[in-house]
Amino acid sequence: MGVMNFSLRRRRALAAAMRAGADALLVTHPPDLRYLCGFTGSAGALALTKGRAKLFTDGRYREQAKLEAPGLPLSIESRPAAQAASLWLSESATRCLFNAAHVTVLEIDALRQALPSSKRRGFLQPGQDLVARLREIKDATEIERLRAAAALGCRLFDQALGEIASGATEIEVALTLEQGARRAGAEGMSFDTIVASGERSALPHGRATMAKLPRTGFVTLDFGVLLEGYCSDMTRTVHLGRPKSDARSVYDSVLEAQLAGVAAVRAGVEARAVDEAARSVLRTAELGEYFSHSTGHGVGLEIHEGPRIAAKQTARLEAGMVITIEPGVYLPGRFGVRIEDTVLVTRNGAEVITPTTKALIEL
Amino acid sequence: MGVMNFSLRRRRALAAAMRAGADALLVTHPPDLRYLCGFTGSAGALALTKGRAKLFTDGRYREQAKLEAPGLPLSIESRPAAQAASLWLSESATRCLFNAAHVTVLEIDALRQALPSSKRRGFLQPGQDLVARLREIKDATEIERLRAAAALGCRLFDQALGEIASGATEIEVALTLEQGARRAGAEGMSFDTIVASGERSALPHGRATMAKLPRTGFVTLDFGVLLEGYCSDMTRTVHLGRPKSDARSVYDSVLEAQLAGVAAVRAGVEARAVDEAARSVLRTAELGEYFSHSTGHGVGLEIHEGPRIAAKQTARLEAGMVITIEPGVYLPGRFGVRIEDTVLVTRNGAEVITPTTKALIEL
Repeated sequence: MGVMNFSLRRRRALAAAMRAGADALLVTHPPDLRYLCGFTGSAGALALTKGRAKLFTDGRYREQAKLEAPGLPLSIESRPAAQAASLWLSESATRCLFNAAHVTVLEIDALRQALPSSKRRGFLQPGQDLVARLREIKDATEIERLRAAAALGCRLFDQALGEIASGATEIEVALTLEQGARRAGAEGMSFDTIVASGERSALPHGRATMAKLPRTGFVTLDFGVLLEGYCSDMTRTVHLGRPKSDARSVYDSVLEAQLAGVAAVRAGVEARAVDEAARSVLRTAELGEYFSHSTGHGVGLEIHEGPRIAAKQTARLEAGMVITIEPGVYLPGRFGVRIEDTVLVTRNGAEVITPTTKALIEL
Repeated sequence: MGVMNFSLRRRRALAAAMRAGADALLVTHPPDLRYLCGFTGSAGALALTKGRAKLFTDGRYREQAKLEAPGLPLSIESRPAAQAASLWLSESATRCLFNAAHVTVLEIDALRQALPSSKRRGFLQPGQDLVARLREIKDATEIERLRAAAALGCRLFDQALGEIASGATEIEVALTLEQGARRAGAEGMSFDTIVASGERSALPHGRATMAKLPRTGFVTLDFGVLLEGYCSDMTRTVHLGRPKSDARSVYDSVLEAQLAGVAAVRAGVEARAVDEAARSVLRTAELGEYFSHSTGHGVGLEIHEGPRIAAKQTARLEAGMVITIEPGVYLPGRFGVRIEDTVLVTRNGAEVITPTTKALIEL
């Protein structure tokens, strides 16, 4: 696979901090650290300032940091890594941004206390998702990894179909997906596997339980793998036995909405327009009130990233974003249907990277 | 199983806040929420003030909140739950503590902005682990659940022994544990399963990989289940083939250290004395420098809770605490050994709730 261009990413991150009026950036959120230097340890801090970068961690991660972030200056600390990093930055910089969405009140108080008194007030300033915004647009190597993760998800779905039968438990179906993922080299799943059968398919987040699959009814599978750090995400809803006409009709509407959502995707479009494209199909079918969540979200190193594909989101899609399109209809006490693809936003449209069939599978 | 006495816990939590000079407590950390009212949703806030308690969440969790926290006043919100909760508290209280270890800078800024201007400055004050301290001492129902989780861990270890053979992959051994856990009704694992074989046993946190188990050498298994919300945690190190004398000698020293640690546990003892009891055995055996982590930690709704069993911890153990005792020796490039029990602190000593044999198992 391709090599991540970490130094380019670090230059862009620092440039974003400078546009926000700072001359340094403190990075502590693990996915941001991984994105900017490759380090995957659970405790570390990356300090960026003009022309210089340094990774701080503790003794547990010495060898791992050298291996994962070769060439990057490294400091092994007995103090908390973020504290060492902010002290180091305070020696040469005057205003440093941190990620306010991932630093706790306790942490920032301790960081400020550890600074020299002249730097305690103004130096550390809350920043707004600087790295998260960069991460929304995937580069070629990331797209390659996201494709590989999505392709593994599709293979696992095909294998799991053989396990979906009346009397099997939801857990057994989930385990088939999860074992297959691990045997194929995945680090794990990107979220708790959803297998929701019969009435439980009306729960948007019905984690697999010991419930047995019914003789007839829907089974929703929503799952993702974590492969080489990147997440996959897909949902298919299949039917045990012959669906009645109301079930088929809901399925057809959700599929129509999902296809309309995908068709609305292209660079330059506002995220809310994609949401509306899917939502309006369900509204027309008088199912709008049963589509109780947003249409999708970005996927990358984390399972939920920007952009949000939702009603009020005016941000415009850009080529290289990877997002989900996942409308659903949930009829409480009866059944539910959700269909989800992960798609790559391109200049002229969308490329579905989870190309498993969406025709209703009857088992 | 027994019933959690949530109202008693809430009274104690509010009493702790009042001792800290406040007249209200805002609870948002999910394990704290679960501890104080049973609610397990991912987004909620519990507001406590004199004589009143109210749970805030959003429409996704309406039914779940009613079911899990029956009798507790409930407010379904379109605003963020924590914002609605602090506004509600600000109507009658004057000083409200929040958990500074789990509220981010972004969140607290938003909460303060949403308050009436008269309350923006002094009302929300950082609190220090008020609920975490309560959670350190388990009540009868919690001990019952922790015993059940630990007992399941022991059964799974016995089953996994059959899978440990030269040529099997670490992943296969991990999957045996994880499948067994799910089939026995566990919600999942309490942390990423560690199966570290051969040279990899020298990694304190060697997650299971595709590596094949060697013909001869140590295999360390460190795993835990999540059962009815509570975590188990145990480690055993077994040997494939006959151990050489140096391997056996290290094993015997770690076992002696582990037994010394357990023997040092009783109510009233400082946590650091337990650490020292285990550490001094390894120091005497000239292995002290290879025991690179602390001796243990509390276990409960989270896999790592207080108290910490480490060199500088002067807090005293109390009856009802449930802690791990897990010394290890790691010889880089050669091998490692760790042995871990979970124990219940009692007035006169410790009760090991993971009673699987610690004699060296040769497979």
